[in-house]
Amino acid sequence: MSTDPLVIFTPSGKRGRFPVGTPVLTAARQLGVDLDSVCGGRGICSKCQVAPSYGDFPKHGVTVAEGALSDWNAVEERYDRVRGLKEGRRLGCQATVQGDIVIDVPPESQVHRQVVRKAASARPITMDPATRVVMVEVEEPDMHEPSGDLERLKVALKEQWQIEGVTAPLAILQKLQPALRKGNWQVSVALHQPANSEEFQILGVWPGLHEGGLYGLAIDLGSTTIAAHLCDLSDGRVLASAGIMNPQIRFGEDLMSRVSYAMMNPGGDAEMTRVVREAMATLATELAAEAEIDAALIFELVIVCNPVMHHLLLGIDPVELGQAPFALATADSVTLAARDLDLTGIAPTARVYLLPCIAGHVGADAAAVALSEAPDKSEDLVLVVDVGTNAEILLGDTHGVLACSSPTGPAFEGAQISSGQRAAPGAIERVEIDPETKEPRFKVIGCDLWSTDPGFAEATKDSGVTGICGSGIIEAVAEMRMAGLVDASGLIGGAEATGTARSEPQGRTHAYLLHDGTEAGGPRILVTQGDIRAIQLAKSALYAGARLLMDKRGVDKVDRVVLAGAFGAHISPKHAMVLGMIPDAPLEKVTSAGNAAGHGARMALCNRGEREQIERTVRRIEKIETAVEPRFQEHFVNANALPHAVDPFPELAKIAPLPNVRFGASGGGEDGGRRRRRRG
Amino acid sequence: MSTDPLVIFTPSGKRGRFPVGTPVLTAARQLGVDLDSVCGGRGICSKCQVAPSYGDFPKHGVTVAEGALSDWNAVEERYDRVRGLKEGRRLGCQATVQGDIVIDVPPESQVHRQVVRKAASARPITMDPATRVVMVEVEEPDMHEPSGDLERLKVALKEQWQIEGVTAPLAILQKLQPALRKGNWQVSVALHQPANSEEFQILGVWPGLHEGGLYGLAIDLGSTTIAAHLCDLSDGRVLASAGIMNPQIRFGEDLMSRVSYAMMNPGGDAEMTRVVREAMATLATELAAEAEIDAALIFELVIVCNPVMHHLLLGIDPVELGQAPFALATADSVTLAARDLDLTGIAPTARVYLLPCIAGHVGADAAAVALSEAPDKSEDLVLVVDVGTNAEILLGDTHGVLACSSPTGPAFEGAQISSGQRAAPGAIERVEIDPETKEPRFKVIGCDLWSTDPGFAEATKDSGVTGICGSGIIEAVAEMRMAGLVDASGLIGGAEATGTARSEPQGRTHAYLLHDGTEAGGPRILVTQGDIRAIQLAKSALYAGARLLMDKRGVDKVDRVVLAGAFGAHISPKHAMVLGMIPDAPLEKVTSAGNAAGHGARMALCNRGEREQIERTVRRIEKIETAVEPRFQEHFVNANALPHAVDPFPELAKIAPLPNVRFGASGGGEDGGRRRRRRG
Repeated sequence: MSTDPLVIFTPSGKRGRFPVGTPVLTAARQLGVDLDSVCGGRGICSKCQVAPSYGDFPKHGVTVAEGALSDWNAVEERYDRVRGLKEGRRLGCQATVQGDIVIDVPPESQVHRQVVRKAASARPITMDPATRVVMVEVEEPDMHEPSGDLERLKVALKEQWQIEGVTAPLAILQKLQPALRKGNWQVSVALHQPANSEEFQILGVWPGLHEGGLYGLAIDLGSTTIAAHLCDLSDGRVLASAGIMNPQIRFGEDLMSRVSYAMMNPGGDAEMTRVVREAMATLATELAAEAEIDAALIFELVIVCNPVMHHLLLGIDPVELGQAPFALATADSVTLAARDLDLTGIAPTARVYLLPCIAGHVGADAAAVALSEAPDKSEDLVLVVDVGTNAEILLGDTHGVLACSSPTGPAFEGAQISSGQRAAPGAIERVEIDPETKEPRFKVIGCDLWSTDPGFAEATKDSGVTGICGSGIIEAVAEMRMAGLVDASGLIGGAEATGTARSEPQGRTHAYLLHDGTEAGGPRILVTQGDIRAIQLAKSALYAGARLLMDKRGVDKVDRVVLAGAFGAHISPKHAMVLGMIPDAPLEKVTSAGNAAGHGARMALCNRGEREQIERTVRRIEKIETAVEPRFQEHFVNANALPHAVDPFPELAKIAPLPNVRFGASGGGEDGGRRRRRRG
Repeated sequence: MSTDPLVIFTPSGKRGRFPVGTPVLTAARQLGVDLDSVCGGRGICSKCQVAPSYGDFPKHGVTVAEGALSDWNAVEERYDRVRGLKEGRRLGCQATVQGDIVIDVPPESQVHRQVVRKAASARPITMDPATRVVMVEVEEPDMHEPSGDLERLKVALKEQWQIEGVTAPLAILQKLQPALRKGNWQVSVALHQPANSEEFQILGVWPGLHEGGLYGLAIDLGSTTIAAHLCDLSDGRVLASAGIMNPQIRFGEDLMSRVSYAMMNPGGDAEMTRVVREAMATLATELAAEAEIDAALIFELVIVCNPVMHHLLLGIDPVELGQAPFALATADSVTLAARDLDLTGIAPTARVYLLPCIAGHVGADAAAVALSEAPDKSEDLVLVVDVGTNAEILLGDTHGVLACSSPTGPAFEGAQISSGQRAAPGAIERVEIDPETKEPRFKVIGCDLWSTDPGFAEATKDSGVTGICGSGIIEAVAEMRMAGLVDASGLIGGAEATGTARSEPQGRTHAYLLHDGTEAGGPRILVTQGDIRAIQLAKSALYAGARLLMDKRGVDKVDRVVLAGAFGAHISPKHAMVLGMIPDAPLEKVTSAGNAAGHGARMALCNRGEREQIERTVRRIEKIETAVEPRFQEHFVNANALPHAVDPFPELAKIAPLPNVRFGASGGGEDGGRRRRRRG
């Protein structure tokens, strides 16, 4: 035995001695080396490609001579001729060990390869999808030893892949016999293993080697927007992404309006269920078309959403979520068939996984953020804020995580704002106001120029300047505050007080003219007193939620802040702190996680272990119900003011700080804010 | 401890000492006594009724004094007032042990009670259905410790019933919240535990105690007829039974015609699938209406059928079953949702169980017969024949069981017979022919009089005499043979040879006039030469199958014969042996099992353990494929003759035997039979 050749795999470093003639794939399997194979060593799939190295390897203590692997055989030659084999590569199932050898497994040949991550804060994705393809050779039927084709397929899976506990839904039984015969008793099957299960379901069957791939959707089902990534389940690549409006908008902009709609209108919940399912089916089909893949190859969906969306999607009346004690029908993860959600157009056997909900107001979207940002694995105390129509807030570190949800409303998404619009070309997304002249400049989505730059009009002539999106209104209000146009209570000063004609009277209040587009046929875009109030309400809710968690944790500052949410990606941390949206923290400790909920969904899509992970994590998160916490109301009222009249990060500012000004006699100041709230 | 009162349960004889104050139900549970309870001891369901006995019990060594049980409490008094408690009965959950006591558990309080059996040969049914109801008290939601209603229900099931591994389909999640609140946090759930599974699925949920019952259907899906029993899943009672024509008949009378239809007509299999599913849904609804139960309380279906029906029901193209090697898509039992088979109208969560198939030609119906008649448990060698459009044949004893299927065709069911009809009022089912006068007399279904009895015309004036059913044609042919009207080759003699004008010329052959109903406006009913040939072919197939198994077993006689099948119930064993349908056996050893397949289905419906039992048994049965066995053809040809010209059981006969006559020159005799077959 000791004279058998030594086989060393890189990068794992795993090594062992194998008899001359052992296929490389066999050696890899026996050593537990992560080397892919779909065809089971038949030289068909080419997934087991390896790169042998020759020469001296003092580090490994071997010298690899020419001839350490068998010569190319007919299968490799044919494969190279037909498909082409990269220089230096061998098929692991064909090349056999002849002498001491060092063999590298390139990333694309690893089953559990890592997906390149986008956001620095997000946890990396290691591929281990719940659904994968294996090819088997099934014994032909023998009428003297009768057994079903399915039973012989199961025997083949057990013998060739050591996979047991396999079941097949009816849709597969109906396709199995022709597939086996067309494939001349070789078939590929898509096997799905749910989280926390030892069992496998067959979701697809194809004659011979299936080369069409398997795909999955990671869906972030928001109150306002449904966003989805179409991913390749072999390597996690995002092939297409899209977002569409949630058609439930017409039944109510925010969650509670939709709950009310369900309560007031018999069948209203069923109607909302129908439209959101239709929208998701449409989105799936569109993404498949965009990526030019067959939608019938979409076998998995992972959905994250808030609890009301969760119940409406599942066809559960959300009435209990509209009133204390905000009881969920189910808080655990939900696994079901896509057809149970009327998701047609994709694979008829496709499976859906909904992440667990954290509490009645803290949904599977927050769980996805927790999966992506992993506050429970953070050494320092991190505040994770997912800004959307509702804000999901997590605070914690390795010692424990707290969670709550805060009803910010849709103002941060440009709704309830006089010139508000959703993020689209032509929407103002960046604003600066000169504290001396009080003149603004801005950028719109789709154009890199400032509005004051030469060529801006030409560059934006297609889109025009059409309104203000969520990040734009936050910057506008913060800049107005810093330029002395707005006082701490949120009141906009008139032209006399501010010294600029852009402070226009509007009824009994004032508005600031951000852009007069009438010359170019566009709208006049103003920031009105109502807009300021809407932003104040939204940011107070957000801040109050964060403060509540900090109280519970017994801290008055956090080490770092992560802004998540599709919208969070575009918020300027500086302006957010000027507004008092989030507790103060060193600016370099405020990061954007992008669409963390979507990333969490993608993690759960690409790796079934992450599903088990988040299910365990969610059970350990301490849930805080803001709706009945007296301190939440208190923080909410106290947070109404716009605290920073000066740029809190002057080293980053191009504009000088201003004194804290206050306008008018009525309604101003922090007391005014509190009183208004009480009257409301 | 030794001074604690002694509690003795009858009929089990289980005994133990329990502290004063122990509820009887608690004592029963601790001793493993089979005492039912749905409400879990809340004094609501009354399922735990027991009958205490007082006085001296020398056999048990105790004397039971008055006061050995606690006095009636308020719960029992209320129950008695509202619902009435039978004399001498107590509620086991309320009455507590106060002294030595003997307590009888009446059959209706036992979970695993036995169902009274109809056919002597059939194995008894002990209740242990896969679906049962339990009531639980669920903790109310607490917003400070948020958890889903489903999760709290699961905790309650674990704590109150020690039931774990529970899942709920979407349809239950959608109903759970209102049920919990309407029931004030007490709900009943229908729990389903599939065969070979540790897991439970919730199939139904109701506020408070569910008193509507649970029901199941045992369905025998035949090529010609779909027969179903509606059973109460608490005690196994059959509440209603019905049979309807299989609407696939219009695509082909026998199985192979339907397979051909599927092969020749694109979409033909889907069409046959649709019609049979529709018929089953209709049958379910009709049975529920007849039994006056809510069809939505039908939670389980057990279906037995031959392989072609099996595949067509499941929507699997049966093409492979039409050609060697007759490969089944799946041979194992199939468990699926009723809605997968479009079975609407019943509980939307209802489950379907199909028994395993034995081989490509020996289906789940044969498995059900094996379950009911248990040849594998027989000490003597038993031949079980299930006579239908196909005959399923089992031969065996405790040393092993052989199985095959034989294509008898539909002649035994009255099809392919000139005056044939299905068994219905007006159909001739019994025939006697006087060997001297050659005059017949007969009975029709729905009338106990012989046709020669006074009052027959009056008694049958509603139904008339409309045709001959399966059992009638067998008796007619056998009686014709014994009366010397037919020779050993099956040829009908003319009037000259037979001496009766009832032998009418018909083309180049003769026919025997059984009944001239023209006076009463009815049809003339004749047994034609074609009819004899059809019966000869059918009986030859049946006999050949049985002989083939006997060859394999190495025997030339069997100890006993069981005739199964709805039709088998009506066959006269004597006439069957006159025709040579079955191997000769002592007449008292030939019994009818009634609809054994239906009984097997009912066993699997009422007891989930029987499902596991038949799955194990089927794996051990040796399958013989008649279609490719040369000896089957040989036996088939040799079996064409009608062997017994004399009554083989003269002691039972009222009519004297006749000499073996033979008519005509051409086509007669055993050789003739063989030659005809070869030409065909």
